[in-house]
Amino acid sequence: MRATVMYSAGNVQIKNVPDPAIINPTDVVVTVTRACICGSDLWPYKSMEPSETGRVMGHEAIGVVESAGAHVRTLKKGDFVIMPFAWSDGTCEFCRRGLQTACIHGGYFGNEEIPGAQAEALRVPLADGTLYKVPTGEDEALFQSLLTLSDVMGTGHHAALGARVGPGSIVAVVGDGAVGLCGVIAAKRLGAEQIIIMGRHPDRIALAREFGATHVVSERGDEAIERVRELTGGLGAHSVLECVGYEQSMFTAVNVARRGGAVGRVGVPQSETIPSAVETFQNNITIAGGPAPVRAYMDELLPDVLDGKIEPGRVFDRVTNLDGVPDGYRAMDERESIKVMIAPN
Amino acid sequence: MRATVMYSAGNVQIKNVPDPAIINPTDVVVTVTRACICGSDLWPYKSMEPSETGRVMGHEAIGVVESAGAHVRTLKKGDFVIMPFAWSDGTCEFCRRGLQTACIHGGYFGNEEIPGAQAEALRVPLADGTLYKVPTGEDEALFQSLLTLSDVMGTGHHAALGARVGPGSIVAVVGDGAVGLCGVIAAKRLGAEQIIIMGRHPDRIALAREFGATHVVSERGDEAIERVRELTGGLGAHSVLECVGYEQSMFTAVNVARRGGAVGRVGVPQSETIPSAVETFQNNITIAGGPAPVRAYMDELLPDVLDGKIEPGRVFDRVTNLDGVPDGYRAMDERESIKVMIAPN
Repeated sequence: MRATVMYSAGNVQIKNVPDPAIINPTDVVVTVTRACICGSDLWPYKSMEPSETGRVMGHEAIGVVESAGAHVRTLKKGDFVIMPFAWSDGTCEFCRRGLQTACIHGGYFGNEEIPGAQAEALRVPLADGTLYKVPTGEDEALFQSLLTLSDVMGTGHHAALGARVGPGSIVAVVGDGAVGLCGVIAAKRLGAEQIIIMGRHPDRIALAREFGATHVVSERGDEAIERVRELTGGLGAHSVLECVGYEQSMFTAVNVARRGGAVGRVGVPQSETIPSAVETFQNNITIAGGPAPVRAYMDELLPDVLDGKIEPGRVFDRVTNLDGVPDGYRAMDERESIKVMIAPN
Repeated sequence: MRATVMYSAGNVQIKNVPDPAIINPTDVVVTVTRACICGSDLWPYKSMEPSETGRVMGHEAIGVVESAGAHVRTLKKGDFVIMPFAWSDGTCEFCRRGLQTACIHGGYFGNEEIPGAQAEALRVPLADGTLYKVPTGEDEALFQSLLTLSDVMGTGHHAALGARVGPGSIVAVVGDGAVGLCGVIAAKRLGAEQIIIMGRHPDRIALAREFGATHVVSERGDEAIERVRELTGGLGAHSVLECVGYEQSMFTAVNVARRGGAVGRVGVPQSETIPSAVETFQNNITIAGGPAPVRAYMDELLPDVLDGKIEPGRVFDRVTNLDGVPDGYRAMDERESIKVMIAPN
């Protein structure tokens, strides 16, 4: 089959690779209906060390079960499923508490061990715990939004929960990428009263406003912090969603939070330390977040997608077949595209 | 009157200073029944830049109202009160939410602006919001434990809340000072099942065990982390109380936390950054805490002190008059004493 292979920073190619097959009896093989390129795929795209064998990329997908191992209980050929970016057994101490991204037997898709979803098909380990069967079956009009439940919508929701967004909250969202935009949706959905999007790309800002952002801060650094303070009566935001991962964006996040407020971070950190240890202490600011247990959030988010109450799929502004994937990486890296959806078959 | 004045690192003297007086109509003057030396007083004791005028130290006290300003509504001469380490109006946005250490009009005792409580008496600003009247009046047998509600017991409780201790929790307490010991009390009080005290002073460890610690880890660094993992089935603690403030102790704290766990930090940070940004992210560890709103916690903690259910006053292992205070600083700095109580009158 054909798949997206990254060999080094900037070097993404579409290659013929072996077809996926059942290895363990708890596996299924899924034919990929739609996959996509993630903002977090841009980190290796910028910095991956050269690898001869390369890495089959992609950790977000919706698809159809093609074959199931002998021990798979809840899924069968033909089921339409959402694949979270992490695989998990669904039964361990952490999974039972809804933190599937900490599963003792789990892991992530799209690395050197587990080939990813930017391909015609892929093997899904621990399928009963990992995959979420969509009860309504396939409906092409919903593909985009269902696909966001694989990662970005659940991740935005995780940021909002970590930041303790609730009815009446004043929220700041750091970052106008797909996750930040889904963070706006999540904040509004949880009852935020004021949602400040911090970003500077006109197309993304426009979408953020449609998703519920009430204010825009396009300044950077100290000016951005100052501007958020002005918009919040001098006090800062109750809840801050950090959706980038750079040290500078984390600095902004913790410094626009109000005393007693919380930062939910979902941008993969690109530095070894969290800044402003003293200020966050003096101000009793809580810092939460990490890889989102999107599998746990599907029960809550899927009904809103099916009802059309939220439309996170609007973050996709480009669709391509596999041949267009390398250019999709370039387009996202150059901020020409917010998020690229892939129709590999 | 006589008061404790710090002039520079290591230089603490008992001096005659002007008597405190009402300045604002919302002030009261309190005669100090008992005060004490705080672990956090040891930071300036190690590092204070020389000052000609010096700083009247002390932010913990119980005492009796001597005189009250014209606008004071809830207190009168003769009332027996607990003084939290921060003063607060009791009415602002933050005070109403129980975060008096973020009070818009408040501040801290024992600095160059607001003379402290290691003295015969002191002025208390915004007295209605700040002071807590003890309903049962003076009872010398309870002085020690009541005094801990000024800071260390409330601070230990804050660490436990930040670390989300609840029934059945596995808890690690980093630091065996007075706050760490009160953290053990707080964790037990909130229902922790396993409480690991991390420290190496035999007298403190013995007290921690009496307070409810079930395990002791006396190793340091990576060995300490390894030992906590061994004691927790390899998974780490649900809840970690950071009661020191050094970068190394914070490193230990975040690295003994279980995936999805929380660290409540109450040790005043001595470094600019929080370590292990990537590990805490990958493990979805929440970092909370800061200066404890001990004023808010008195309603909850005082009944347990009055009933004898908790005895945090046992952290005091030395009592002195004012003359003995400089030696008290030395003794605490050299870890010869856990915590020194002062009877200034």
